[in-house]
Amino acid sequence: MHAIEKILARAAGKESVRAGEIINCRVDLAEVNDLYPQTILSFREMGGKRVHSPERIAFILDHYAPASTVQQAENQKFMRQFCREQGIELLFDVNSGVCHQVMVDHGLVYPGMVLIATDSHTTTHGAFGAFGTGVGATDLAVIMATGHLWLRVPEVIRIHLTGRLPLGVYAKDVILYIIGKLGADYAIYKAVEFTGPVVKALSVSERMALCNMTTEMGAKCAYIQPDEVTLDFLKGKVRRKLEPVVTDPDFQYAEELFFDVSAVSPQLAVPSSVDNVRPLSELVGTPVHQAYLGSCTGGRAEDIAVAARILKGRKVHKNTRLVVVPASRDVFLEALERGDVATLVEAGATFVTPGCAACLGTHEGILAAGETCIASTNRNFPGRMGHTQSAVYLGSPAAVAAAALNGEVTDPSQILAELERKAS
Amino acid sequence: MHAIEKILARAAGKESVRAGEIINCRVDLAEVNDLYPQTILSFREMGGKRVHSPERIAFILDHYAPASTVQQAENQKFMRQFCREQGIELLFDVNSGVCHQVMVDHGLVYPGMVLIATDSHTTTHGAFGAFGTGVGATDLAVIMATGHLWLRVPEVIRIHLTGRLPLGVYAKDVILYIIGKLGADYAIYKAVEFTGPVVKALSVSERMALCNMTTEMGAKCAYIQPDEVTLDFLKGKVRRKLEPVVTDPDFQYAEELFFDVSAVSPQLAVPSSVDNVRPLSELVGTPVHQAYLGSCTGGRAEDIAVAARILKGRKVHKNTRLVVVPASRDVFLEALERGDVATLVEAGATFVTPGCAACLGTHEGILAAGETCIASTNRNFPGRMGHTQSAVYLGSPAAVAAAALNGEVTDPSQILAELERKAS
Repeated sequence: MHAIEKILARAAGKESVRAGEIINCRVDLAEVNDLYPQTILSFREMGGKRVHSPERIAFILDHYAPASTVQQAENQKFMRQFCREQGIELLFDVNSGVCHQVMVDHGLVYPGMVLIATDSHTTTHGAFGAFGTGVGATDLAVIMATGHLWLRVPEVIRIHLTGRLPLGVYAKDVILYIIGKLGADYAIYKAVEFTGPVVKALSVSERMALCNMTTEMGAKCAYIQPDEVTLDFLKGKVRRKLEPVVTDPDFQYAEELFFDVSAVSPQLAVPSSVDNVRPLSELVGTPVHQAYLGSCTGGRAEDIAVAARILKGRKVHKNTRLVVVPASRDVFLEALERGDVATLVEAGATFVTPGCAACLGTHEGILAAGETCIASTNRNFPGRMGHTQSAVYLGSPAAVAAAALNGEVTDPSQILAELERKAS
Repeated sequence: MHAIEKILARAAGKESVRAGEIINCRVDLAEVNDLYPQTILSFREMGGKRVHSPERIAFILDHYAPASTVQQAENQKFMRQFCREQGIELLFDVNSGVCHQVMVDHGLVYPGMVLIATDSHTTTHGAFGAFGTGVGATDLAVIMATGHLWLRVPEVIRIHLTGRLPLGVYAKDVILYIIGKLGADYAIYKAVEFTGPVVKALSVSERMALCNMTTEMGAKCAYIQPDEVTLDFLKGKVRRKLEPVVTDPDFQYAEELFFDVSAVSPQLAVPSSVDNVRPLSELVGTPVHQAYLGSCTGGRAEDIAVAARILKGRKVHKNTRLVVVPASRDVFLEALERGDVATLVEAGATFVTPGCAACLGTHEGILAAGETCIASTNRNFPGRMGHTQSAVYLGSPAAVAAAALNGEVTDPSQILAELERKAS
């Protein structure tokens, strides 16, 4: 069996499962965010009185942090009240950040777990060898009522990443490149595993970006086999024994794909689809009104650090706004400690509260008609970040910072090479 | 003549003016914020083609910084386009902060000037010996069209502050105490001057809080005679010769009032009027859902510093959210440098982008029905910060921090006294 199958078999109380099978799984952690008060309503419509396992449910107020309308404030109050009433202690209020980062920061994500959230990008947790997937309000309400949810065991596609990442090329560029080649529907209801020497060498932050974006291939979940990097990272955070699950050597993958990253250059997903990917070099000079650095895809401390490196002692272009959204409180604290927040504010950046902000068009950093944004986020369909006539280009945090500096799409490799030349 | 009369006489091109007279004044700086796209529409409806003096007009995007809805984004785009079209270079975008602080940070406020903005609390600039007042869109459009605006020369009330501020009592407590005694309509269309040994000893930040709140007595403008404190503060910022105007010794005030601050304790304006003021001690224990530290009244570096002092190494109460909004980018940078941002985030604070945020119920930090907020802001009428059934208590930044710590109204004097005891 594949590690994911073993995880699901354990969760279903079965000896083994196979791809395509429908199973009823115990969910180790279910998360509801403030975009989904409907979850509570559905739970009650189902006749729910007390949640099955309050200790396995988390509420997180990340989409409107903090509330900018009375309706948002009412929804958040409704969730706080529900948590109090149900004895749910895992309430992450508006000072926390984006769910996927916050759960990791708080040591709630570990290898072998089943984690389900009302957020599409729950695939992120494949970076830790966990099964993570996103569902809607009704499915989540079922988990609240029963502690379980049915799932179809996914086939597994394995992607081997070989070669060596060139300067200025990141996990985000690689995954955009792959999605561009395969298409946004390539992995529908499949698991996508990443392996190979490139993955081994990636930081946890970069692995999270990689797994996060598998949602944009349609994947049900992502997977990276936990290694020393994973375990070192989790050791200080997770208060349980770390027991990675391991795929059997004879497991038959649905498909094995190979990508040599040495030849990958910085990439952009251009309007208005995440699989509409082109080399950034073809788009150099495209004017940018807003550069947006943030989200569960590209708002981690490393992402902010690379932007600070590019913008240190410089100014954001006068025609461009740079909006920075740390993925979480801990990310913000780390960026504060490194001095990256001060560097970016001095350069002209606008920091907003850790959370989802404008990534999905609901909070700080919304676009007007005719405006163009380059973003380290995950989606760029029409209207995703505001007006349906705004345009979103998806790229790496470095590409976002480079565009902020010049007011137009700019190759970050060249800026970074120049910085390295100066430093040596 | 009073200094304010001399300022207005100069602006009207007259040798002298007297209280009650209607004069047409040259405006040294007119500011439009993003709550007022109507200003541009009114300018055009008046037949305006080119603004009279683009170098004397500033646009500032502070009320929705950055935009959380498409409409807000459209309004901001509209203003940016207008600035480009009209050659207005003083455009302060969403990374700037609240207008009254930003203008000071950028050295645009100086003694003797006439400054008019589409914001009620423009009286703030009396702290620098400037004439500052707020107007609506139509009046501001007249300034855009003609460079001038008619004003009625105000009578002047002089308030003498004597005695010595007790520990934990700030300018905000004093002005709340005064407004409580005099009423919210006491100074309608009058100038309010502050003088006396207490004022002399106040920092610029505290003087700004004092003048800012005269709007809540109905004042047309505020005034503090510039002294060494003022000039030292302005020297590094303002690029022109500083020439404070001085009131003639024989000037007859409409009224002279005396307050001994030695007996003033921490004060709160309780729902739902700013002149509904009671000693904080009478309200100790009132539960607080949100503590809000920010605004042009109470969001300066000193305000954030006192909150950090109170919360250092401690945690915000679990039933309370602490929302912190630095008044400007420079304030944020100062608080970053002092380490106060990290201290407060570690304590559990939610930082939002410098700007107006929830002070006027339009952006981050909105209240739901039944929620109570203690705020370092300036208004607490029903619905000011969100739902009409939410309650706002106005107090000093120290009172806000103390309430955040305990989850209920708490006397900051006691906490500060304890900290002093420990330090000595």
